[in-house]
Amino acid sequence: MTEPMISALTITLPDWLKERLATPVQIQGDEARMRFVIELARANVAHRTGGPFAAAVFRSDDGMLVSAGVNSVTRLNNAALHAEVVALMFAQARVGSYTLRAAGASYDLVTSCEPCAMCLGAILWSGVQRLVCGATRDDAERVGFDEGPVFPESYAYLERRGITVVRQVLRAEAAEVLDRYLRSGGVVYNG
Amino acid sequence: MTEPMISALTITLPDWLKERLATPVQIQGDEARMRFVIELARANVAHRTGGPFAAAVFRSDDGMLVSAGVNSVTRLNNAALHAEVVALMFAQARVGSYTLRAAGASYDLVTSCEPCAMCLGAILWSGVQRLVCGATRDDAERVGFDEGPVFPESYAYLERRGITVVRQVLRAEAAEVLDRYLRSGGVVYNG
Repeated sequence: MTEPMISALTITLPDWLKERLATPVQIQGDEARMRFVIELARANVAHRTGGPFAAAVFRSDDGMLVSAGVNSVTRLNNAALHAEVVALMFAQARVGSYTLRAAGASYDLVTSCEPCAMCLGAILWSGVQRLVCGATRDDAERVGFDEGPVFPESYAYLERRGITVVRQVLRAEAAEVLDRYLRSGGVVYNG
Repeated sequence: MTEPMISALTITLPDWLKERLATPVQIQGDEARMRFVIELARANVAHRTGGPFAAAVFRSDDGMLVSAGVNSVTRLNNAALHAEVVALMFAQARVGSYTLRAAGASYDLVTSCEPCAMCLGAILWSGVQRLVCGATRDDAERVGFDEGPVFPESYAYLERRGITVVRQVLRAEAAEVLDRYLRSGGVVYNG
């Protein structure tokens, strides 16, 4: 290969999201947190910085925002940078541990769409204790995104590991962002 | 939270691996490629830079090494940095695309152990066309690692998407590295 071997890569948030996170965010309640996440997904489409997905990690008890992520696959040429993976990586970096369970607090991951197979696994390893989803797998697949091998047993596996799963929170609003992306001519990268 | 919000994070290879990759590597044949990957897994244990897992992306036809990754969960405090994810991220960065299918060549991922649920999903999205595994899920679980919700249907899903899967290449040698890690007192982070 003519391209040189790479030994470091940097994962960044888009500038508009950095600005949005410049002041602390604290939100209580699943619907209000989901509304925040859907707003980020919509902004990711509007700014053309990636796919129509966003996710955020909140401290469960007081609702402090720990991290937020938006789909960055096309922006950073990295297929693993789904919104959930980005949010979880930044949360772990912030608390300084590879597991959010070690930090003496409980954390929720709120995602605008049910996780694909990769993200479901990443959620399992992340140490979050609660997963809150907006749009469904069907909603994502209707606009052309593949979610991969996720089965009812996959969710049962998470539950057995102590992760509570809440689904279809503001589903219609979350699904509308997917349709909006399709109409805007966005790239469906896992078609 | 007292820790400031983070908006960029850098993923690095350990120094010993950077040195190992300083000169081009070209290897033909699954067993020879697996031997290289097992050597990296063993080195990751010896240098105490992470879990006993390594992976590498090779160009299928001529065996040029595109990227290599080792488990970096504990070193970089990032639960998503399994060996496969690291190798795939660096491969995509090197070819400058979020899918290895766009690059006009076919690529193999060779991994010292069958992928966990997260990595199996990441492999699906990566664009590799062939997956070669050493140790088995059972080998990993015997030393205490959880592999998550991976089912026979998960592999069938990959195959339907055009990914050829080859398993148990040098299985005994690959599994020996897992035992070695356990004996060395390494952290089993997904116990």
